[in-house]
Amino acid sequence: MQIKDLGEFGVIDLLTRMVVDQRASSSNGKTFSLDLSVDTGDDTAAWSAGAKAVTDLFTTDTMVEGVHFTRETTPWEDLGWKSLASNISDVASMGGLPTYALVTLGLPPETEVLDLESLYKGMLQISNEYGLAIVGGDMVRSPVVFITVALTGAMQGQPMIRTSARPGDLVAVTGHLGSSGGGLKLMLENPSERGEAADFLMRSHRRPRPAVTVGQSLVESEITTAMDVSDGMADDLSKLCRASGVSAKIFADRLPVHPILKNRFPHDSVDLALGGGEDYVLLFTGSPSKVNHVVSGLTGGAAVVGEITDGEPGKVTVVDAQGIEIPAGNRGWDHFGPAQA
Amino acid sequence: MQIKDLGEFGVIDLLTRMVVDQRASSSNGKTFSLDLSVDTGDDTAAWSAGAKAVTDLFTTDTMVEGVHFTRETTPWEDLGWKSLASNISDVASMGGLPTYALVTLGLPPETEVLDLESLYKGMLQISNEYGLAIVGGDMVRSPVVFITVALTGAMQGQPMIRTSARPGDLVAVTGHLGSSGGGLKLMLENPSERGEAADFLMRSHRRPRPAVTVGQSLVESEITTAMDVSDGMADDLSKLCRASGVSAKIFADRLPVHPILKNRFPHDSVDLALGGGEDYVLLFTGSPSKVNHVVSGLTGGAAVVGEITDGEPGKVTVVDAQGIEIPAGNRGWDHFGPAQA
Repeated sequence: MQIKDLGEFGVIDLLTRMVVDQRASSSNGKTFSLDLSVDTGDDTAAWSAGAKAVTDLFTTDTMVEGVHFTRETTPWEDLGWKSLASNISDVASMGGLPTYALVTLGLPPETEVLDLESLYKGMLQISNEYGLAIVGGDMVRSPVVFITVALTGAMQGQPMIRTSARPGDLVAVTGHLGSSGGGLKLMLENPSERGEAADFLMRSHRRPRPAVTVGQSLVESEITTAMDVSDGMADDLSKLCRASGVSAKIFADRLPVHPILKNRFPHDSVDLALGGGEDYVLLFTGSPSKVNHVVSGLTGGAAVVGEITDGEPGKVTVVDAQGIEIPAGNRGWDHFGPAQA
Repeated sequence: MQIKDLGEFGVIDLLTRMVVDQRASSSNGKTFSLDLSVDTGDDTAAWSAGAKAVTDLFTTDTMVEGVHFTRETTPWEDLGWKSLASNISDVASMGGLPTYALVTLGLPPETEVLDLESLYKGMLQISNEYGLAIVGGDMVRSPVVFITVALTGAMQGQPMIRTSARPGDLVAVTGHLGSSGGGLKLMLENPSERGEAADFLMRSHRRPRPAVTVGQSLVESEITTAMDVSDGMADDLSKLCRASGVSAKIFADRLPVHPILKNRFPHDSVDLALGGGEDYVLLFTGSPSKVNHVVSGLTGGAAVVGEITDGEPGKVTVVDAQGIEIPAGNRGWDHFGPAQA
């Protein structure tokens, strides 16, 4: 059997089972009182930092040319920005601050030096803006460009995880959905379009801004369940539900779509909001009273978009204003197999 | 200009300059008293762990199919072992213990599930043996197999670095050189060979054992300069010399070559010891009195193989028993450019 037959979830389940069943505990970590508190399967791993009430966070994310980006839609400088942004967003979704990064570059020998400089320029821009430091990495020859970033983070308080959503919880998001997907769609369909809408949407795709401050606010408000929206809101909510053993309902009419996106893609904005991906806003759940309180207090804005229900783990349905189920279109995608139903 | 014209050192220099010049300090790290003590350019990055006399270590290493391994010479289970071994060795060369690992797999959709299980089996074997825990990762579609491991470590005491070698220091290594390279050579030339020599050499290539305990002993003995031998002893010593701004001389007749390697490849054992790579022993320097004392005390054995001299930074010459310079053959290799002189 090949991994494309098993699909992404199947492969991850298999490997997670192996790791959990066959792994001895980290005896070295314990030597330094580094007790693991969040294991494989969440946005980051987390462990106590020994002394003090600090938790260490640890995550990694990869972009492969032709799979996660093309040079046409993502210039090198933006690629540098985005390769760190996806990792910073994982740290943000736990409620932490990013600290140190290692950058691994897989490059064909024909890569232009100027392009490489642009890549690093973008990485340094976002590093400086978010207060983290690149402290090394690895560079290897590869027939295809890939960038892997490993990032540490730190936080005080309880990391927000994926496994604690409960039926009756409300589901909220901390910013607009679909703008990044709209930018990609626009570049693929009308690469030469310019103007306010094109600028806004392309910028949303190329320069996403991870929600680090928002993540800290959520932790301070005692939100305990969160993840970031990277693969598409419906797909990511499904992952959160799967981790928590619950289902969810999304109210299509409450999805926060930016007016520019709605105006430029009036027929597609809901699909883009549900499945566009790379929004890097945070998705969180909690009791109705708590979520309503937090949503009204967040300075950058947030919106209730659904609720957690009993049911098949990971099942997400989308309903209209009358509560009637509507097909959700293409919800994210499978890294190895065919698109999911 | 393309990166193959600039060569590996040129590219690394360029990016290091950019990072150092344009990087703001890690303001987030400082929030948690995580002060960076070893920056980009060493085997790992290192920072104080906040409270307690603990230093955090952080490293990453990548293997790409067709560049760092082929499926013929490295079966999947061994590939799993080796992908972690090279990272553990970096932590060992600082004097630390490996703690937590994230594994990124780039895989073609046609990858066999059984092969993936074998890969993880090898990773879990070395993880359990060395007391670290795999706590997550990322999996992406890629036309070529690559494995990136990011590893944290921790230590008490002063990390051993590359920049502190001084003229007059002796250079020593903590185990046999060239056995891994001999294993690769044997598999490429006589893939069907079996017997004691083939078993030993192939095992040296496929199941290297990072020198974690030895690294700790060196730190306890107050050795301050070390790195691991991964690209070949001559090439790695050259990197250490470059980082320290010194030259070095290697005594060819003192290179510790295992009798099996010497017997199986009598004409090539010195070249393999100098340039074979993936030995994962430690290379360290220090004053003659200190190095001689440490070498005689290490239970696993160690050998003085050269000395640090004044001269062009990074220049390494190889001399025979009479002190006459001999050509060193192919000393390691450049990831992007032609073989070095």
